[in-house]
Amino acid sequence: MSETSADRRPRDTEPFRTPAHVDPAGELLAVPGSLGAEGFKTLFRGHPGGVSVITAEGPDGPVALTATSVASVSVDPPLLIFSVSALSSATPAILAADTIVVHLLDAADLPLARLASTSGIDRFADTSLWTRLETGEPLFPAVRAWTRCAIVSRLEAGGSTVIVAHALQGETNRGPDDEPGALVYHNRTWHRLGDASRID
Amino acid sequence: MSETSADRRPRDTEPFRTPAHVDPAGELLAVPGSLGAEGFKTLFRGHPGGVSVITAEGPDGPVALTATSVASVSVDPPLLIFSVSALSSATPAILAADTIVVHLLDAADLPLARLASTSGIDRFADTSLWTRLETGEPLFPAVRAWTRCAIVSRLEAGGSTVIVAHALQGETNRGPDDEPGALVYHNRTWHRLGDASRID
Repeated sequence: MSETSADRRPRDTEPFRTPAHVDPAGELLAVPGSLGAEGFKTLFRGHPGGVSVITAEGPDGPVALTATSVASVSVDPPLLIFSVSALSSATPAILAADTIVVHLLDAADLPLARLASTSGIDRFADTSLWTRLETGEPLFPAVRAWTRCAIVSRLEAGGSTVIVAHALQGETNRGPDDEPGALVYHNRTWHRLGDASRID
Repeated sequence: MSETSADRRPRDTEPFRTPAHVDPAGELLAVPGSLGAEGFKTLFRGHPGGVSVITAEGPDGPVALTATSVASVSVDPPLLIFSVSALSSATPAILAADTIVVHLLDAADLPLARLASTSGIDRFADTSLWTRLETGEPLFPAVRAWTRCAIVSRLEAGGSTVIVAHALQGETNRGPDDEPGALVYHNRTWHRLGDASRID
């Protein structure tokens, strides 16, 4: 976060082109096969996302991870999706759980977003931050909003698993226009939405 | 967009609680069954999302829709997910397609985001805005970035379908720190990320 915009520029704005897709006249050519990993990462580096923390009770205790893939997909029934990477230490417990809690964060919740995305620490060490629902799932109750969900589908997708979850109960503590504003993750940086970011 | 913040406040910041989940002592109670539609909408009204336009070639010509659910789920293989609602006129053609184009927008692409989310108009009327790839898919080439994808999984989820797509080729025209900045949709309003929104 201490980098200046100029520091980031050389690394992050380098455009990619997949040479096999462009002939000498500049025409796009269809090719079989995949976009390369670097090209794919470059595409999505500029794609912002809302920030969530997902918790579950695992066999060895509570787990938490930070996700930017949570999206609402259906209102009736109330369904949401997200994906978890096999690289996260919390993923096995989330995949094994019947129920989870999806915490939808705003800028006041940035410390929690950082906590749940930091490797090698006990994310539940500060017992003043979390509690348990009567049903046993770990809950960080101060977040903007949360919902306890039942996992209804799991779909393997490369090194990740896409999860469809059904919202069972929930609570909204702060509305969309309340201070300090929505939290967005973009290009390894956190942003806060507000009057300064609004496009009129 | 002409509403003031004060105009929006009474409607959008009204918190919801699901009374059946809270007993008179304030304890959260587990309940069977679903979160209601209004409660679920209130949760996600405060959840921001990046903005994409998805196109496909349908039996009656090209189709386009604006989505805020696109997320990268795997780099190798390069996979992304999104959901499409049965309520969108473009959905049947997207569900029937083998390949689609996912356009990842920034604030310069806001007119396209609006075009592809407006009902009852011909989204392809201005032929100066779009072309076709050699493989036939409609492409709006001026966007920040785009990727042609093969649909590899479809999963029904309530009134929507979750799609997993494999990126075949793509191009990034603007990097994450390029002007005019990332585009975010939040609480029915568009936002632009930049130095003013960054949390240091």
